[in-house]
Amino acid sequence: MRVTISRKAHFNAAHRLYRKDWSDEKNDAVFGKCNNPNFHGHNYELIVSVTGAINPETGYVMDIKDLAQLIYEEVEQPFDHKNLNLDVPEFENLNPTAENIVVVIWDKLRAKIASDKDLEVMLYETPRNFVTYRGN
Amino acid sequence: MRVTISRKAHFNAAHRLYRKDWSDEKNDAVFGKCNNPNFHGHNYELIVSVTGAINPETGYVMDIKDLAQLIYEEVEQPFDHKNLNLDVPEFENLNPTAENIVVVIWDKLRAKIASDKDLEVMLYETPRNFVTYRGN
Amino acid sequence: MRVTISRKAHFNAAHRLYRKDWSDEKNDAVFGKCNNPNFHGHNYELIVSVTGAINPETGYVMDIKDLAQLIYEEVEQPFDHKNLNLDVPEFENLNPTAENIVVVIWDKLRAKIASDKDLEVMLYETPRNFVTYRGN
Amino acid sequence: MRVTISRKAHFNAAHRLYRKDWSDEKNDAVFGKCNNPNFHGHNYELIVSVTGAINPETGYVMDIKDLAQLIYEEVEQPFDHKNLNLDVPEFENLNPTAENIVVVIWDKLRAKIASDKDLEVMLYETPRNFVTYRGN
Amino acid sequence: MRVTISRKAHFNAAHRLYRKDWSDEKNDAVFGKCNNPNFHGHNYELIVSVTGAINPETGYVMDIKDLAQLIYEEVEQPFDHKNLNLDVPEFENLNPTAENIVVVIWDKLRAKIASDKDLEVMLYETPRNFVTYRGN
Amino acid sequence: MRVTISRKAHFNAAHRLYRKDWSDEKNDAVFGKCNNPNFHGHNYELIVSVTGAINPETGYVMDIKDLAQLIYEEVEQPFDHKNLNLDVPEFENLNPTAENIVVVIWDKLRAKIASDKDLEVMLYETPRNFVTYRGN
Repeated sequence: MRVTISRKAHFNAAHRLYRKDWSDEKNDAVFGKCNNPNFHGHNYELIVSVTGAINPETGYVMDIKDLAQLIYEEVEQPFDHKNLNLDVPEFENLNPTAENIVVVIWDKLRAKIASDKDLEVMLYETPRNFVTYRGN
Repeated sequence: MRVTISRKAHFNAAHRLYRKDWSDEKNDAVFGKCNNPNFHGHNYELIVSVTGAINPETGYVMDIKDLAQLIYEEVEQPFDHKNLNLDVPEFENLNPTAENIVVVIWDKLRAKIASDKDLEVMLYETPRNFVTYRGN
Repeated sequence: MRVTISRKAHFNAAHRLYRKDWSDEKNDAVFGKCNNPNFHGHNYELIVSVTGAINPETGYVMDIKDLAQLIYEEVEQPFDHKNLNLDVPEFENLNPTAENIVVVIWDKLRAKIASDKDLEVMLYETPRNFVTYRGN
Repeated sequence: MRVTISRKAHFNAAHRLYRKDWSDEKNDAVFGKCNNPNFHGHNYELIVSVTGAINPETGYVMDIKDLAQLIYEEVEQPFDHKNLNLDVPEFENLNPTAENIVVVIWDKLRAKIASDKDLEVMLYETPRNFVTYRGN
Repeated sequence: MRVTISRKAHFNAAHRLYRKDWSDEKNDAVFGKCNNPNFHGHNYELIVSVTGAINPETGYVMDIKDLAQLIYEEVEQPFDHKNLNLDVPEFENLNPTAENIVVVIWDKLRAKIASDKDLEVMLYETPRNFVTYRGN
Repeated sequence: MRVTISRKAHFNAAHRLYRKDWSDEKNDAVFGKCNNPNFHGHNYELIVSVTGAINPETGYVMDIKDLAQLIYEEVEQPFDHKNLNLDVPEFENLNPTAENIVVVIWDKLRAKIASDKDLEVMLYETPRNFVTYRGN
């Protein structure tokens, strides 16, 4: 009897899509206006879902306060009000597309969640564009 | 060719997280402010999803009006404007965490939905905290 | 040049609509299922709007962090995870209808916001039912 | 390492649920007010999700602009501000239930998306009624 | 001490923007794709707001159940699952633009709401396009 | 008989709150994490509302397509995927707080909207923080 618990969170950040090893022309051709050298930004919305058995003692899969605190420490604190390209070490050499960001977040959370639980992360870059990663 | 149909519903209820067999101190330590002996409450939002083959006669997996009526009878009528701990028999000896509520709702609906169809229930306790159960 | 700044907040609470000085029959006739003696509850959503001149130094009407903190102290902390009838002194002898709650909140905030600013409070009892008070 | 990218889109259309080969009485009995011979309509909201490996060159599963353009060409342009029964050839002999519409949309998009990627389409007929199809 | 109470409602309808007394060319030039002779449709969302003094007996400006019932009788029942042009007498000779629809709804509700109360109606034609009328 | 028509739009931008004429210490003390020298960003949501008489010919206060196009030209094109501080001339010497941005947008739109119409602009910096300006 495995139940999924989900928690929404959010962070506001600037970013720019480009590769240091590509010419300006190629970056422009591939990433268009997302390649503005002065950056643009988003209100990123996050849904973190953890699936596991209900603890019969507490009735919880996991205390949602603990999940919220974990998201705060691993994602909101290091990413909020930051420039993903310049301020977040994970993106020093990784293009901060929504796909790459969601994998980075999943990896950070996966390391801190008990291994008998499954993890899914959804990341909204805008209300109309979002990505999901389940680790496989 | 299996399609999922989903229906949103809602109910407003009071509840309190605690175990009768635990001391006040232990209930407080585990459930914090959710253990207020005078109760607190939520606008619970529900998404019920039924997956099955499309009936070639009607073009329906299931008439959504029938699903809405079933949700009304099994969930909204017995849970809406109620105190889950005091007014709903299923929680007389079961802590009404979101996880336990979603399993209770799934069990009630599963008994009334044709066995060739799959069932998933999502329950939003708040816009930021929600749970999902698929019966396994 | 007066601009309005608005901040959303929320609290989860139990309540019951009734008057101590009415019979059970009259309370039932007027308040229906909202009169459940065991209480029911809501996720109350709040939008607090403050209108004033932009401070030319900061570009702020009011620092939104200060407004968020004020809402936390005056509304979220005393109302969240509480039973409005039993735990909140303002409703000891006042029926906690949405209309009465929004006036109580407005009065509490009005006392703490500079008098050269206007105040409006919206309170969502459910996503479909809400009230607004502007102090006149 | 497969990631899902999702894009929301929408179209406004009229439709009527009925079968030409049924009597008026039978259509009324099965489809009720959805069988109004003068049609009714909806703001259909669509979420198209494509799952595949991240291209290590771009950091994209698929350029979301390409996905948005594909949805525009295959769904929004032919369906928006149309009468599904009268203006859209796919429904000339197919009852435009939400279930049938989502399968038609999935089939149209599947033909244009690389075969190493998975496709899921969600279609909201109203904010409370929606369907999902994954092609199996 | 006047408080505003607001209630959301919705109806799904087909419509077509055109004037019988204009040529097809002029209707096309002015109303574009909204002039499809086979109609298109919307999920109309409605917010009805009534402003008045709080009744000190009940704590209500007006019982929201009564307001919901009034909206049902005056708007939802006559408009839902209808073709506004063909099925609703008010639009027999009136172009059903959002502006004209909101005035028709306001007039219908105004006649049934006590004259010491103010009335505002908002009508969402789509999530991005909406209109508001306050009677002056 | 004046009706308000409203249109939602959005743009994604980076910004930083600070004054060139203040020390780093003072900027930090007043603007906190919003003063990150590497910028952060938002999905800005915009609601532009125009109030005027209904044109009896068309049934429109103003063609919403014209309003959408105007917002595109005056706001979305110059602001979207930009760094407000570095790329948008209006903020070269103006701190891009939400309050200052909404006044800039209002001024740009006011110059292009007929003088017999009223204008209101709402700007959401995040789903929980927003500002409104009506020109007085």
